[in-house]
Amino acid sequence: MDKHTGLPVVGMVGGGQLARMTHQAAISLGQSLRVLAASENESAGLVAADVVIGHHTDIDALRSFAAGVDVLTFDHEHVPGEHLLTLAAEGVVMRPGASLAFAQNKLVMREMLAGLGIPGPAFAEVSEVDDVLKFGEKHSWPVVLKAASGGYDGRGVWMLDTATQARETVPELLAAGTPLLVETKVVMLRELSALVARSPFGQGAAWPVVETVQVAGINTEVLAPAPGLSAEQMSRAQDLALRIASQLGVVGLLAVELFETENGLLVNELAMRPHNSGHWTMDGSRTSQFEQHLRAILDYPLGTTDPLAPACVMANVLGAGVAPEMSLDERLHHLFARYPDARVHLYGKGERPGRKLGHVNMLGEHLQQLRDRALLSAHWLSHGVWLDGYEIH
Amino acid sequence: MDKHTGLPVVGMVGGGQLARMTHQAAISLGQSLRVLAASENESAGLVAADVVIGHHTDIDALRSFAAGVDVLTFDHEHVPGEHLLTLAAEGVVMRPGASLAFAQNKLVMREMLAGLGIPGPAFAEVSEVDDVLKFGEKHSWPVVLKAASGGYDGRGVWMLDTATQARETVPELLAAGTPLLVETKVVMLRELSALVARSPFGQGAAWPVVETVQVAGINTEVLAPAPGLSAEQMSRAQDLALRIASQLGVVGLLAVELFETENGLLVNELAMRPHNSGHWTMDGSRTSQFEQHLRAILDYPLGTTDPLAPACVMANVLGAGVAPEMSLDERLHHLFARYPDARVHLYGKGERPGRKLGHVNMLGEHLQQLRDRALLSAHWLSHGVWLDGYEIH
Repeated sequence: MDKHTGLPVVGMVGGGQLARMTHQAAISLGQSLRVLAASENESAGLVAADVVIGHHTDIDALRSFAAGVDVLTFDHEHVPGEHLLTLAAEGVVMRPGASLAFAQNKLVMREMLAGLGIPGPAFAEVSEVDDVLKFGEKHSWPVVLKAASGGYDGRGVWMLDTATQARETVPELLAAGTPLLVETKVVMLRELSALVARSPFGQGAAWPVVETVQVAGINTEVLAPAPGLSAEQMSRAQDLALRIASQLGVVGLLAVELFETENGLLVNELAMRPHNSGHWTMDGSRTSQFEQHLRAILDYPLGTTDPLAPACVMANVLGAGVAPEMSLDERLHHLFARYPDARVHLYGKGERPGRKLGHVNMLGEHLQQLRDRALLSAHWLSHGVWLDGYEIH
Repeated sequence: MDKHTGLPVVGMVGGGQLARMTHQAAISLGQSLRVLAASENESAGLVAADVVIGHHTDIDALRSFAAGVDVLTFDHEHVPGEHLLTLAAEGVVMRPGASLAFAQNKLVMREMLAGLGIPGPAFAEVSEVDDVLKFGEKHSWPVVLKAASGGYDGRGVWMLDTATQARETVPELLAAGTPLLVETKVVMLRELSALVARSPFGQGAAWPVVETVQVAGINTEVLAPAPGLSAEQMSRAQDLALRIASQLGVVGLLAVELFETENGLLVNELAMRPHNSGHWTMDGSRTSQFEQHLRAILDYPLGTTDPLAPACVMANVLGAGVAPEMSLDERLHHLFARYPDARVHLYGKGERPGRKLGHVNMLGEHLQQLRDRALLSAHWLSHGVWLDGYEIH
């Protein structure tokens, strides 16, 4: 319990942008997020008052961090499973708790969801290259090879078009000790994300389902709500996510990444934390995903998820391949001059190619206009160049 | 300039709730507010990463704090004027700068506004009790005696109903060295606040004018926009505030507290910083007053001030006279259970009678419903008691 406020202390393992924005939301709740950061100058460490330096793979660092907090939560999925079990055995209140294993290991997740009858692509564990060859013959090529753990933003995913490619790729990965699974390549219409929260008490809350746009495996844009999704489809996707949260015993946020196909929805991935597909809620919803995650893990009743405008588009600001000539400060000046209603969120991170540096939210009524404005804004902040070929609004 | 982000560093003198919420807004702009706090455990000190301990009356503390920042700004008006002049002479970029003197001294403010032809109550400097007696005879009793500097939230204001009362009150204050002025007691319909921002470049932005409700001199409620105010009156009040900001050379936020009378608007007070009457903007406007203050002092183009709902009501959470039986944590549980859409902002302060501990914003369409809900919520958080006599929504 915090000695100044008498409120429970929340500790988050990981000092990235999700921790940064969780701290920002925590301030309104009278909280000050305690952060376990791997090094100084991480995104959250630059803004939080209460930062402990220690690595998320170091059980002693985790243990001593956990000893000072009332609830432990996570900015990422990379704490080793055995450490989570150790902490749980020692009585640490972790939210999400054991269910985090399903977000950490794609094979465990697929097996659990299949067992619950929740639709996903066909999959198989890969112990040797023959497993992939047999799977390809049975389900047809191409297939998708995945690292069972550790991947994100398109890393740890390989498209294999032929048996020859499989023979070239798989043995090396297995030799390196990468745990693998293989999945069918889904013919999809688009990707959706259903973001929900669940409290220990069992209360659930769902935001409108969004469409996520990926370029080279990295999310670039989120459209909220997903355009053209019928009320029935929306409701089915929300129900699916709430059912997974409940059946897996998730506490906190759950993002269910979905493939929309001609035969319905398939689950792609799970994340049990605030998620890139929910950044639009910071400006577009009555309750942001960061406040909601805190409310859920503190077992507070969940907040209203109503949108504040008919549409909201989020665009990620990704580090440019070539450093922009203009300083970030100057780029902000120009962006705000062009779009005084752009909602900008920067993460305090050094600019490196492809790195997520921030995001821009645009709220309004006309989706195409919002997309143009959000993409122009994000590209401008990344590159210091206004893209051509967009309608000017 | 910040070594991680390359962005200018903003330093705020004062570690109260305004600094706390400015830091919260700063995070989105890629900033981390540097705070000069008088002691550890102040409201902003609990949440900001970059806190320097030092007193705002200590010129050495101010000087060394200012040396590390690109722009210096203020959470309150209590830095001695001579220190501001010293810092200005030494080349410190202060926003607001010299204009802050008009918010620090009510006599200087009245004289300046009168010189600009801006309507206010009649006033006179008080050097001896006779000044008050003559003023009362000329303008009729009661009169309002004010400390020229240092007052806030109703402190430093005395109603004098008769000459006898003046003779009892004034000499003691003068003997204590309190600089005084006397004003006519305005017969007003209600109090309004016009909140605007101005950048060094000279750009101005105004939010909708609000009605402020005071109880015993302390603001308890803000209604945004002010109900029943015509578009023409709204526009006149906004123009007045923008004109004052421009003529006084204010940079940053300016709150103009107004009396609405049968003969038009009179200026009551000025504040050159984020202001209690603008807390509704955190949830009710596209750009919050805290982000806008930062944009103004950083000379960024100002943000859109559009409201996000037809009406927004803010209610202050004031410390109860008798400590509530239920912990703050439990009170939050119950509040969120009853009103999942309540927007709560807590300041991390110990509960003491009458102290501003936080505020609640309610957004929607029906003003009376929002007022009932906001007042019930704030009273609940203060006292742990649901008031009777309100319609249940």
